[in-house]
Amino acid sequence: MAGNTFGTILRLMTFGESHGEALGGVIDGCPPGIELDFDAIQKEMQRRKPGQSAIVTQRKEEDEVQFLSGIFEGKTTGTPIGFVIPNTNQKSDDYSDIKDTYRPSHADYVYEKKYGIRDYRGGGRSSARETASRVVAGAIAKQIIPDIKINAFVSSVGEIFIDKPYQDLDFSLIESNPVRCPDLASAAKMEDYIRQIRKEGDTVGGMVTCVIQNVPIGLGEPVFDKLHAELGKAMLSINAVKGFEYGSGFCGAKMKGSEHNDLYNPDGTTQTNLSGGIQGGISNGMDIYFRVAFKPVATLIQKQNVLDNQGNIIEQQGKGRHDPCVVPRAVPIVEAMAALVLADFYLLLNSVKK
Amino acid sequence: MAGNTFGTILRLMTFGESHGEALGGVIDGCPPGIELDFDAIQKEMQRRKPGQSAIVTQRKEEDEVQFLSGIFEGKTTGTPIGFVIPNTNQKSDDYSDIKDTYRPSHADYVYEKKYGIRDYRGGGRSSARETASRVVAGAIAKQIIPDIKINAFVSSVGEIFIDKPYQDLDFSLIESNPVRCPDLASAAKMEDYIRQIRKEGDTVGGMVTCVIQNVPIGLGEPVFDKLHAELGKAMLSINAVKGFEYGSGFCGAKMKGSEHNDLYNPDGTTQTNLSGGIQGGISNGMDIYFRVAFKPVATLIQKQNVLDNQGNIIEQQGKGRHDPCVVPRAVPIVEAMAALVLADFYLLLNSVKK
Amino acid sequence: MAGNTFGTILRLMTFGESHGEALGGVIDGCPPGIELDFDAIQKEMQRRKPGQSAIVTQRKEEDEVQFLSGIFEGKTTGTPIGFVIPNTNQKSDDYSDIKDTYRPSHADYVYEKKYGIRDYRGGGRSSARETASRVVAGAIAKQIIPDIKINAFVSSVGEIFIDKPYQDLDFSLIESNPVRCPDLASAAKMEDYIRQIRKEGDTVGGMVTCVIQNVPIGLGEPVFDKLHAELGKAMLSINAVKGFEYGSGFCGAKMKGSEHNDLYNPDGTTQTNLSGGIQGGISNGMDIYFRVAFKPVATLIQKQNVLDNQGNIIEQQGKGRHDPCVVPRAVPIVEAMAALVLADFYLLLNSVKK
Amino acid sequence: MAGNTFGTILRLMTFGESHGEALGGVIDGCPPGIELDFDAIQKEMQRRKPGQSAIVTQRKEEDEVQFLSGIFEGKTTGTPIGFVIPNTNQKSDDYSDIKDTYRPSHADYVYEKKYGIRDYRGGGRSSARETASRVVAGAIAKQIIPDIKINAFVSSVGEIFIDKPYQDLDFSLIESNPVRCPDLASAAKMEDYIRQIRKEGDTVGGMVTCVIQNVPIGLGEPVFDKLHAELGKAMLSINAVKGFEYGSGFCGAKMKGSEHNDLYNPDGTTQTNLSGGIQGGISNGMDIYFRVAFKPVATLIQKQNVLDNQGNIIEQQGKGRHDPCVVPRAVPIVEAMAALVLADFYLLLNSVKK
Repeated sequence: MAGNTFGTILRLMTFGESHGEALGGVIDGCPPGIELDFDAIQKEMQRRKPGQSAIVTQRKEEDEVQFLSGIFEGKTTGTPIGFVIPNTNQKSDDYSDIKDTYRPSHADYVYEKKYGIRDYRGGGRSSARETASRVVAGAIAKQIIPDIKINAFVSSVGEIFIDKPYQDLDFSLIESNPVRCPDLASAAKMEDYIRQIRKEGDTVGGMVTCVIQNVPIGLGEPVFDKLHAELGKAMLSINAVKGFEYGSGFCGAKMKGSEHNDLYNPDGTTQTNLSGGIQGGISNGMDIYFRVAFKPVATLIQKQNVLDNQGNIIEQQGKGRHDPCVVPRAVPIVEAMAALVLADFYLLLNSVKK
Repeated sequence: MAGNTFGTILRLMTFGESHGEALGGVIDGCPPGIELDFDAIQKEMQRRKPGQSAIVTQRKEEDEVQFLSGIFEGKTTGTPIGFVIPNTNQKSDDYSDIKDTYRPSHADYVYEKKYGIRDYRGGGRSSARETASRVVAGAIAKQIIPDIKINAFVSSVGEIFIDKPYQDLDFSLIESNPVRCPDLASAAKMEDYIRQIRKEGDTVGGMVTCVIQNVPIGLGEPVFDKLHAELGKAMLSINAVKGFEYGSGFCGAKMKGSEHNDLYNPDGTTQTNLSGGIQGGISNGMDIYFRVAFKPVATLIQKQNVLDNQGNIIEQQGKGRHDPCVVPRAVPIVEAMAALVLADFYLLLNSVKK
Repeated sequence: MAGNTFGTILRLMTFGESHGEALGGVIDGCPPGIELDFDAIQKEMQRRKPGQSAIVTQRKEEDEVQFLSGIFEGKTTGTPIGFVIPNTNQKSDDYSDIKDTYRPSHADYVYEKKYGIRDYRGGGRSSARETASRVVAGAIAKQIIPDIKINAFVSSVGEIFIDKPYQDLDFSLIESNPVRCPDLASAAKMEDYIRQIRKEGDTVGGMVTCVIQNVPIGLGEPVFDKLHAELGKAMLSINAVKGFEYGSGFCGAKMKGSEHNDLYNPDGTTQTNLSGGIQGGISNGMDIYFRVAFKPVATLIQKQNVLDNQGNIIEQQGKGRHDPCVVPRAVPIVEAMAALVLADFYLLLNSVKK
Repeated sequence: MAGNTFGTILRLMTFGESHGEALGGVIDGCPPGIELDFDAIQKEMQRRKPGQSAIVTQRKEEDEVQFLSGIFEGKTTGTPIGFVIPNTNQKSDDYSDIKDTYRPSHADYVYEKKYGIRDYRGGGRSSARETASRVVAGAIAKQIIPDIKINAFVSSVGEIFIDKPYQDLDFSLIESNPVRCPDLASAAKMEDYIRQIRKEGDTVGGMVTCVIQNVPIGLGEPVFDKLHAELGKAMLSINAVKGFEYGSGFCGAKMKGSEHNDLYNPDGTTQTNLSGGIQGGISNGMDIYFRVAFKPVATLIQKQNVLDNQGNIIEQQGKGRHDPCVVPRAVPIVEAMAALVLADFYLLLNSVKK
């Protein structure tokens, strides 16, 4: 496998299977002299952690990150930051029955076909547990660009959508409810719906919206590495993501140019922002906003037909402790990946300044 | 500017402004011994070319590609393929009036802020003319993976959508009409609508769907470089793209797991394909399909308020020869970028085989 | 700091300071299904380890590597291999007196100027302890290319040189003596000399020769990434290295073409091998051999003038447990870096095969 | 073939065979707003050009570089700089007799074995003509870092060496003689020797020394991408190079630490400079100097045994217009590659500054 590296100047390489010894990674290119806020890092880990509320998986994972290098007397030194998150709650026997079967819409089958071998315990490398390393790195990335404000939140669960523009939302309410939806009326409906879905042993998809404010002009590179292209890749690399749109997004495809163009104010800001804060792949200083679609989790607590490695279709009862809806826990992951993209472009922008 | 390179094993670096001497690029990592079909390459160039029908821009660009290296006696040698597409129809005076102004929803303003200088003639590097180099490289990439079938087509223009699944479409009809829509009834409506939009001096957005068939199992890397993440980045790097979704896409976010899971057949194929041919970031052998949203072209043949570099808002009459709707010409670009992603992963897959 | 990644297909990213919690790294791109020989890995670690003989530093470091991922039931899975080498014998107080001073010919001064901060304990990231991670990765790389034989040995210490061509040496004697010199007469002289140098509190430089046999034809890329260019970079990246030459090396610069050309045998082998097994940057199947020059270790157990951070020159008594001569312990590091280069090109070669 | 890209922030990708249409490349990451001195670029091309004096090859190549993008009104715009150097003096028939034979110590044999096909005309991609693209990019790199002074010169031809330290040389004399040796007495001897060698139809090796002055502190990355490791790779990637040493180099391997350490002055400069301006992989502000060994050119104007593709050894009379000694023309190439390395690290250094 390749592809475990993310970023150019700020570069993250991660490792780890859900039921191995540990997850972790190395962050290279972090500027020196940053006084790290470790509580902020751990807080992000708590947001991603299983078992944090009644509507997420009840697995208990401590998710305590241990930093092994790159930090001296509380400050980054500019050397690579190695970190490890031990796997303390591996129940491998939970998974022994899937050793010889391929669960629908999981990566089991393709891993085995591609590599000829797979660590079947809990999905191995394809487990969403892999994102814990991203959250660590993203929490550090946020501290590289402290002036840029990144807020993600749940904007839909199943058919329940927030029907307000983000400007009408109070981001301070995001953490006030287990769904991480700043519209409290919607949040309550979503929570009820997730509880019901869980009772059915089913799962449901949803959407995360991310708003990035106070962005300097000039982030992003204009051709292949456009700012929104890297954001899109970052989001699509998160488990269960099926789509990405920014600014006007798919709605923009229905519009006329005379409706869609963002007219300028004399100070260079724009009167509307259908562009989503990015023009020609480069940030223009307006708010960046995008939406990420997550499919329903594939693991059901129901009977389901699965394929075994002998080519038989057999019925299997799903079990274990899984998320009925992934989006509440996806919020910090979306923010982490956005922070990695922005911090990388921020450092790259410095490199071209004379 | 960085970010003019695409790919890992098969690597493309491009250059060129719309009104400079030439566009071009270098393709590194192309396997040796491929007998290139130059007509096929030129045919792709014709599909992207302006002036090909009444509903696209009437600029005349010859778009003849000249290969400078990497090919000997008609075959690739394994050395880098340098190519140039001369700019033969530059009408720089068309653009002199935009020298000091920033057009709404164009990259003019951010280029000037980021670089302190810009080649204002025709958008310079931010012009969609840049995609000509991508089409050359994509046409070669297709010949690296001849067994994989890539078909893109226009699936919506404004509010006019094809309302059939792709399985019910006849891809051989894509090139039968100037819209590149294989559903002929929709194609006729779309064409009419684009003609009307052009008369108004306005533009309209649309959507391109791409279907990739006969894909080997195992393409894609499971964490950051998932197959759909690279496809997403590739598409989002195309001018005017606002969104990307694959498989169930944004609709998948509304579904339950029990509806969304693709159950296996004994041979490893799946009964449904909401996964879009990719599981855990790796191709599973089923059809890959995705949709790309294009915003309306920002250049209008109407009066519009623009910002000048003195901070004044002034009225400007748009002129020139622009596309009223970008999607018909975007079809070969979408295919080219898809081919580059697939060929790169195909070569990378070889590298891990024992 | 950037630059902690090595390799393209087989990619290593390392972290760790000499007196932090741990060293370690991540190996990405290792092919799946390799049954790892862990004893062989640990044996390489023993060869690099301090305290292994009377002529190397008497620091005690356990150097036990812990693998955290990428291995399942003893085999590589194709996922990234994370590993950690805990620092168990940190005596930070040994180093407290160098907190405010810059030792001659060390990296202290440039780290502080570049980063504005440094982990002064034992050299931090600039310590040769960093190479432990390279040895782990190199030991795995050797197992990716088991047919290629890599033998490095000490060919000079100070003015004492082996005066035989490598073909007359018995590589099985390399590990028979603490100097790692397969010419036993030279080995004895070198050992005596190193003992004497150590008594003087001084250090001495030396040279490592590396011979790579049974190399397939075709490794290396012909322009910037020539096989010998990557080997050269790999060697020059090892602490204390001042020079690299391969094949005829610097002597070749004195020769005539009529003396230097390697005439072919009918089977494609060559009668002589001044080319050093590489032509045009690509392996030709003959033995690859190169020499690496190591300067004397900068830390002396003598009084020496140092600079302090107030701009004063003060006398300081060197102390601690340092190597009087680095080359015996450099032998496994040279082999490790060579293995990483070869395995990477080996995997890349596969990628261009049709 | 891969490996036609050099650099990270400032990135060059080149293409071109000696007897194809053209050579060229793309330079990405050049900062905007640099008023390019085109005469300086062309002057570097003249220094590399064949036919410039009686002691180099008498091939006539115009080597006129055409810039196709990235420059507007004489200034860099920050977009990629595409350039082409047409091949105007291809005498393909000169080479037809080597179509089926592999010349000793050339890349003919390995190219054919690796790629299964080769452009045999004049060495194709393995020809030193490839370096013309490097010289173009290097000349631009010099203009990115105008304060850093890079001077390379011939320090030996065959057994004739300059026996003075570089501090005693007057670099303004380098271009005063066709050998490019600033020690005029040595230059005269070298020139005579090369004339004699040419009469014999033979060739001879030599050495280029490069001195880099006025270097800011902090260039280079401390682990794998050490400044001298990248310089070494850059030099070893030039055709015919067999060795690289910097600072004390191979002599340093014979020395004691008490002789080798560079003691500090109160201002942070050092009293001696055996380190060669680099400590721990990072520039320390002192002069950087290194030596590069070039083997004798393999093409002789003599009869020589060659291998044909049927496995026969046959006698062949060398012909054509070749350099009897490569080092005079290698001087600008060494400078170009050094400039590319330094400019890249210079831009990267900016990226980590807060």
